[in-house]
Amino acid sequence: MHDLIVIGGGPAGLAATTYALGKGLDVVLIGTTLGGRAGDRQHYAGQGEDEALVGEEAALSLQRYLTAYPQRLVNMVVVGLGRDDDVFSVRTEDTTWPSRAVIIATGAKPRMLGLPSEWRSIGLGLAYSVTTHAHAVAGRDVAVVGATPRALLGVAELVQLAHSIALIAPASEALASPLGQRLQQHPRVRLLDGFHVQEIFVELGLIPNSQLVRELVPIDAASRIVVDEQNRTALPGLFAAGDVTNRACEQILIAIGEGTRAAVSAYAYVLAQRLGIAVLAASAG
Amino acid sequence: MHDLIVIGGGPAGLAATTYALGKGLDVVLIGTTLGGRAGDRQHYAGQGEDEALVGEEAALSLQRYLTAYPQRLVNMVVVGLGRDDDVFSVRTEDTTWPSRAVIIATGAKPRMLGLPSEWRSIGLGLAYSVTTHAHAVAGRDVAVVGATPRALLGVAELVQLAHSIALIAPASEALASPLGQRLQQHPRVRLLDGFHVQEIFVELGLIPNSQLVRELVPIDAASRIVVDEQNRTALPGLFAAGDVTNRACEQILIAIGEGTRAAVSAYAYVLAQRLGIAVLAASAG
Repeated sequence: MHDLIVIGGGPAGLAATTYALGKGLDVVLIGTTLGGRAGDRQHYAGQGEDEALVGEEAALSLQRYLTAYPQRLVNMVVVGLGRDDDVFSVRTEDTTWPSRAVIIATGAKPRMLGLPSEWRSIGLGLAYSVTTHAHAVAGRDVAVVGATPRALLGVAELVQLAHSIALIAPASEALASPLGQRLQQHPRVRLLDGFHVQEIFVELGLIPNSQLVRELVPIDAASRIVVDEQNRTALPGLFAAGDVTNRACEQILIAIGEGTRAAVSAYAYVLAQRLGIAVLAASAG
Repeated sequence: MHDLIVIGGGPAGLAATTYALGKGLDVVLIGTTLGGRAGDRQHYAGQGEDEALVGEEAALSLQRYLTAYPQRLVNMVVVGLGRDDDVFSVRTEDTTWPSRAVIIATGAKPRMLGLPSEWRSIGLGLAYSVTTHAHAVAGRDVAVVGATPRALLGVAELVQLAHSIALIAPASEALASPLGQRLQQHPRVRLLDGFHVQEIFVELGLIPNSQLVRELVPIDAASRIVVDEQNRTALPGLFAAGDVTNRACEQILIAIGEGTRAAVSAYAYVLAQRLGIAVLAASAG
């Protein structure tokens, strides 16, 4: 039986696994893509180099560290998760992996428009997270699709950078907020007017990859796994980190911190089990 | 006037400055030691290589990134901080730096025993954080000074690794807890008995470097700056991250995440100021 299985190879999963290895835990990371969505890049016409993302070097340093432990990295899809008598069972297609503790770090995927051309355009001017890619559109004309608070926060970033922003958005509560009203008055923002756009951001939100634990622990209205400040779910031994949780932030460096917090909590859980006590007193002295 | 001044060059400060630069903020980091306490290492007799710390490569990648922006790094001691009409004044010995927002990332220093020999022994077998250095004492005889919950958590780690642990501790509430009682019964732990020790850990706790803001924002009983989940202090425009805060964790990778969260909050604050509204609606869509 393993001490800890980390599901997902994005920045949160990489950090959790690195911490657990440093603490000498018997840990395995199961996932199909090391680096996660942090590997997505925008490539615009006339762009000299690949887009740089804040913190990507830090995530890469964790990935490099872990590649020295190939027996700890399992390139498989997790299809199920159960728990019986304090032992978790992580199921891949043809194997069952027992573990004392599990960290879910499966991330989130963008909510798409559903247009036939959409897949072809991803990374070529079509993106799903303003905050991740805003810096790449300095001086350009941009369209943003969406009227959620998240979309408007994105427009607040873009007015600092882009030449113009077409906000393709139905009337919404967020548009009536002080921020929404201020942005509608902003000289660089046009609401709904159709015109030629060079780039488009779709800001309809993220879909957290939380299916695996939907029957095990509480999920919020946005399908995110609910965790506390120490990245614990409601189920002892089960932890979660990164964009699959309600503490999501779409930032590599924050996901690294969250993944590590989850691993610190998992380590305390495993130590308590080894010592035969319910919980380690976690209050700071 | 700067958009943001980050005080302190440890992992939290490095991450905050990296994020702010990525967002195009006019940011300056003021501090005397890049890398912070993460640069502390243990060197034992017979140890082949320098001690490795979990996450140090990630912190180093941020440091390398920032050295490409020398004009953003100020090697000075901050001696004062004030606020007047929405503008912060950061004072160094001979200069005053005005800024819209400030992040305090000044870390913490260990509480020492006060022995004459103490300074000579640091890093040569004497350390002040079990969780940071536990892996370096595998198979050794260790003494731990302190009876706080924090010290006992350290002993719970050490019983997995060390040959024996002498716990030099007065009777305390923590010693009477389930964890304390379990550890006293553990075959590798001896309470108070004097015997020859090869290494010593002093776990009397940390002293947060929070003096700078003691008159400005609430500080908790352990002298830590109180921040919310988004690393905001009670004073608009003032943020804090890392071991100087009540969300301290003595982990490089967590400090990186906390520093970035503080910078995300500072960025939202600066954007709102630029747009002339009170706050950006921060609820996720």
